[in-house]
Amino acid sequence: MSAAFDASDLKVIAFDVFGTVVDWYSGIAAEAERILPGIDGGAFALAWRAGYQPAMKGVMERLAAGEGGFTLLDELHMSILGGVLRDFGIEDLDADRKRDLNRAWHRLPAWPDAVPGLARLKRKYIICSLSNGNIGLLTEMAKNAGLPWDCVLSAEVFKAYKPDPRTYLGVAAVFDVSPGQVMLAAAHHDDLAAARTCGLRTGYIERPMEFGPSRPKDVSPQLDNNLHARSIEHLADLLGC
Amino acid sequence: MSAAFDASDLKVIAFDVFGTVVDWYSGIAAEAERILPGIDGGAFALAWRAGYQPAMKGVMERLAAGEGGFTLLDELHMSILGGVLRDFGIEDLDADRKRDLNRAWHRLPAWPDAVPGLARLKRKYIICSLSNGNIGLLTEMAKNAGLPWDCVLSAEVFKAYKPDPRTYLGVAAVFDVSPGQVMLAAAHHDDLAAARTCGLRTGYIERPMEFGPSRPKDVSPQLDNNLHARSIEHLADLLGC
Repeated sequence: MSAAFDASDLKVIAFDVFGTVVDWYSGIAAEAERILPGIDGGAFALAWRAGYQPAMKGVMERLAAGEGGFTLLDELHMSILGGVLRDFGIEDLDADRKRDLNRAWHRLPAWPDAVPGLARLKRKYIICSLSNGNIGLLTEMAKNAGLPWDCVLSAEVFKAYKPDPRTYLGVAAVFDVSPGQVMLAAAHHDDLAAARTCGLRTGYIERPMEFGPSRPKDVSPQLDNNLHARSIEHLADLLGC
Repeated sequence: MSAAFDASDLKVIAFDVFGTVVDWYSGIAAEAERILPGIDGGAFALAWRAGYQPAMKGVMERLAAGEGGFTLLDELHMSILGGVLRDFGIEDLDADRKRDLNRAWHRLPAWPDAVPGLARLKRKYIICSLSNGNIGLLTEMAKNAGLPWDCVLSAEVFKAYKPDPRTYLGVAAVFDVSPGQVMLAAAHHDDLAAARTCGLRTGYIERPMEFGPSRPKDVSPQLDNNLHARSIEHLADLLGC
């Protein structure tokens, strides 16, 4: 990362949410075990999340081809869930419990550093989400976990999904600032790379346990990022908040 | 208003903002007097606000005719401001001060009951804005005034302005609830009437001083509203928060 990073012009920090701010692995694992007693919650969480990239790819291709409207992440999660349940041999889950399980994504726990870190950053910057999650999902998650967003921004606002440039540039446009006055904070290098292409600043957040304790993630620094933080509290330290 | 109003199914309260949650008259008057010494700030505020309805009507007509894109309220305020400055005999305001003045709408003070009332309502309901203001304006206003929104919703999210049904029904869709599970709270009967047509519940908030102390507003109850409150704190009382 650049040792010479100058944050004096920074106005907005937009956060990736799943994995970066909230712990989807633990949250989904616990909810799956509650609703589907006897299941391996961790494996269930990994399988559900693994369905996301291919499903989202399909949605983006259909949207680009003009063959489909915008799909909410809640709908996408539900469509993936059907296949995951089948793979786990569960064919008879009733609609109410399926809906309850799908809304587990609304109740994900924040990483322990997230709420205190965001509260500190909020005193100096506009802090918002920038997620492919839908607005309702992100709002209920924030309410449940106490995430103090100034504003919930989402693919749903821009009618485009990350890594579409309209999402990253959309944040700058919403707040009437230049792309360089916005930082994306995320635990995923591909997301950060796409934001950087649009002129945003980038801050990497280490989440070695994103995929659970049995699958530690490489969190080595990537030199292209402006900042590399061990946590959101550490990001607040680095930004003098 | 209905004495038999049953709030047990209510999930979301969406608030009109200008006049209902914040005091645009006092805020604009004070900022105009600060930036334009010697001016009658109250008259300036009334003139600027009076330009809103005709300008918005023009924007909505052009949008409906497919002749123009979505216009941010910040842009609309700026275009109205030019005429107001001319009417007040001010021809030479530099661009920086004009921009500063236009952003006075981002710095409007909350009515004294708004922050404590919203904080109480937030414990039981999802609370959001529903305003023709743009997201950036509403977010900065919330940050400045301490408005504890769960979510900033705006005409900008729905690419339609109130009283277009897409705005009121859009709130219900965002939170995946029925229109009857959403209440619009507003100090304006026309806004509430349009929401009611879409199936929303309505709560009137008295703001007799919306147009300043010399132009008290009739705040008589209108029987079609589900609730009639003297303030947002009183709304919280009525809803048992």
